Amino acid sequence: MNPLSSLRTVRPDYDDNSIIILDQTLLPGKEEYISLKTAEDIYDAILRLKVRGAPAIGITAAYGISMLMRNSKADCFSDFISEMDSYSRYLSSSRPTAVNLAAALTRMKERLLSEASADSSPEAWKGILEAEAEKIRQEDAEACRKIGEYGLSLLEPGYGLLTHCNAGHLAVSEYGTALAPIYLGEEKGYFFKVFADETRPLLQGARLTAYELDKAGVDVTLICDNMAASVMQKGLVNAVLVGCDRVAANGDTANKIGTCSVAILAKHFGIPFYVLGPVSSIDFGTPDGSGIVIEQRPSEEITEAWFKTRMAPDGIKTYNPAFDVTPAGLITAIVTEKGIIRPPFKENLKKIQTTTD
Amino acid sequence: MNPLSSLRTVRPDYDDNSIIILDQTLLPGKEEYISLKTAEDIYDAILRLKVRGAPAIGITAAYGISMLMRNSKADCFSDFISEMDSYSRYLSSSRPTAVNLAAALTRMKERLLSEASADSSPEAWKGILEAEAEKIRQEDAEACRKIGEYGLSLLEPGYGLLTHCNAGHLAVSEYGTALAPIYLGEEKGYFFKVFADETRPLLQGARLTAYELDKAGVDVTLICDNMAASVMQKGLVNAVLVGCDRVAANGDTANKIGTCSVAILAKHFGIPFYVLGPVSSIDFGTPDGSGIVIEQRPSEEITEAWFKTRMAPDGIKTYNPAFDVTPAGLITAIVTEKGIIRPPFKENLKKIQTTTD
Repeated sequence: MNPLSSLRTVRPDYDDNSIIILDQTLLPGKEEYISLKTAEDIYDAILRLKVRGAPAIGITAAYGISMLMRNSKADCFSDFISEMDSYSRYLSSSRPTAVNLAAALTRMKERLLSEASADSSPEAWKGILEAEAEKIRQEDAEACRKIGEYGLSLLEPGYGLLTHCNAGHLAVSEYGTALAPIYLGEEKGYFFKVFADETRPLLQGARLTAYELDKAGVDVTLICDNMAASVMQKGLVNAVLVGCDRVAANGDTANKIGTCSVAILAKHFGIPFYVLGPVSSIDFGTPDGSGIVIEQRPSEEITEAWFKTRMAPDGIKTYNPAFDVTPAGLITAIVTEKGIIRPPFKENLKKIQTTTD
Repeated sequence: MNPLSSLRTVRPDYDDNSIIILDQTLLPGKEEYISLKTAEDIYDAILRLKVRGAPAIGITAAYGISMLMRNSKADCFSDFISEMDSYSRYLSSSRPTAVNLAAALTRMKERLLSEASADSSPEAWKGILEAEAEKIRQEDAEACRKIGEYGLSLLEPGYGLLTHCNAGHLAVSEYGTALAPIYLGEEKGYFFKVFADETRPLLQGARLTAYELDKAGVDVTLICDNMAASVMQKGLVNAVLVGCDRVAANGDTANKIGTCSVAILAKHFGIPFYVLGPVSSIDFGTPDGSGIVIEQRPSEEITEAWFKTRMAPDGIKTYNPAFDVTPAGLITAIVTEKGIIRPPFKENLKKIQTTTD
């Protein structure tokens, strides 16, 4: 059992009609849970990365829309649907890059449309949404375990591993995605040596990955992003494991800014570069990376956020994309709960889509 | 004239028998000059990066040893030399990687041995040291201007440029090394668009490069180190300019941690990667990069230095090298005050050595 199961990233509180999340912006200093009750609470928590990680955002949106609709006064089905649409549009605008956010909201609506009818009661509609949100969370946990198993099959005991950002327990549920093989390996005595990129500007690697791996007893060493080439050059890294926010149909992968850089370094040093994520991260509607919207975030994240001391001159121009796109050609394999996909990605991802449909 | 000439990184105060330095750890928030009087003051200022940049460290050491020996009570030449040796050993241990530190101290001693004699007076010995320290500073300023001219010949107006760490005015004198072509280009209406890597852990790019370029009216955009691949991928970078702490005889170059990573990215995107520095940065006694000692610095620089908030879990392991080595094969050209050196570096650097000797 994952030693982190006590840290529950997102959970519903049905008595209070709210969602309880672990506020990830306060880690590692403080483990504080906060309660989200309104659509604005949820939007704000996603925007400010109090909850982050593509799967966790999807789960939050699913629980969120379910909780919001529990309060609905609508007794006519079309009003109920239109209220839900309005919440969905609002919530899905909080972070445009992660496909799971919009996908979870679409799935909630589709399930409602396919199971409910205008004749059934508002209570029935609400029950369908509750059940679907729970199902999304459960499927996510199962997918993570599967991703962990497939991922572990690519690794040898004692491997040095490098990861970027946080695609672990805190980003999803239970094992995470990129970190799932590490947790599973730890249980099986693989004793990996993990290097965690701190991941500027918001330091998810330092605050979250180093935190959760260390808490789980994994041998983890924190480095600044610009030190990755140095540990690779020393031969300390046998494989790179990263998560993904959105995978285009050709395998181009949007993930936390800096991922593309790590992929180029891995290629240079001949180190396999693995992308791990659920099939729900694959966006078959986007042919390649050029179609992925990359959100630009505020300057202050670079120049002063987190810290009380300003770190750069007043008024300095910044460029602060939240994500970058790693071209498919730099990716060794994409590991999903349905199996390991190798190039050519366009053809092989399609096979997964067919299996899933 | 460089608009930064009012900011003087290092200067002697002969009346007070001290060195005045701009405390670079307080930038960009505060422009504060501090006075160094004792060997411990100088050692500490170099160790804590109050003064940094390979040439500036060399100049500080030269002025420093001159100031310290002004206080010497020795009236016998061998005692004077032995006191100087003892200070030199101490000062040169403050930062092992930069070749200019030890080189400046060696040069001071050699000049004294060649010009002074046991018969001349302590005042004469002290005068020789003062003159030599001034000469080192003047030569540095002239070298920077030459490096700027050679560097500018490699660039076109309107180029997008990327630089890492700070090899500018603050690191040296007047124009800097890597930034010299940018300042010179600005005077000539080249209007470069410069991307400055923030350069974790100590943020010399954010605090110093962004500061000095912005102050000089250059169009500068601050990015986190892990965003360099993203701006290159967008076609915004036509050349990379970096400084160097030590160049081995085969061209392998030690510079601020993260430089090697930028070189690999530049190669991947087909962008020229230029190393700029004075001939004094070339260490002909070190055959290749494997012989360069890389200083490891304290964990706290990654986990909490600068900021009052701790950014990583307590007790987390870190890896914090100050420098990395960029293999010669990734370098397009090395730009010195004696000209532009292209591969094969081993042969072509040797020619410079012969000219210099």
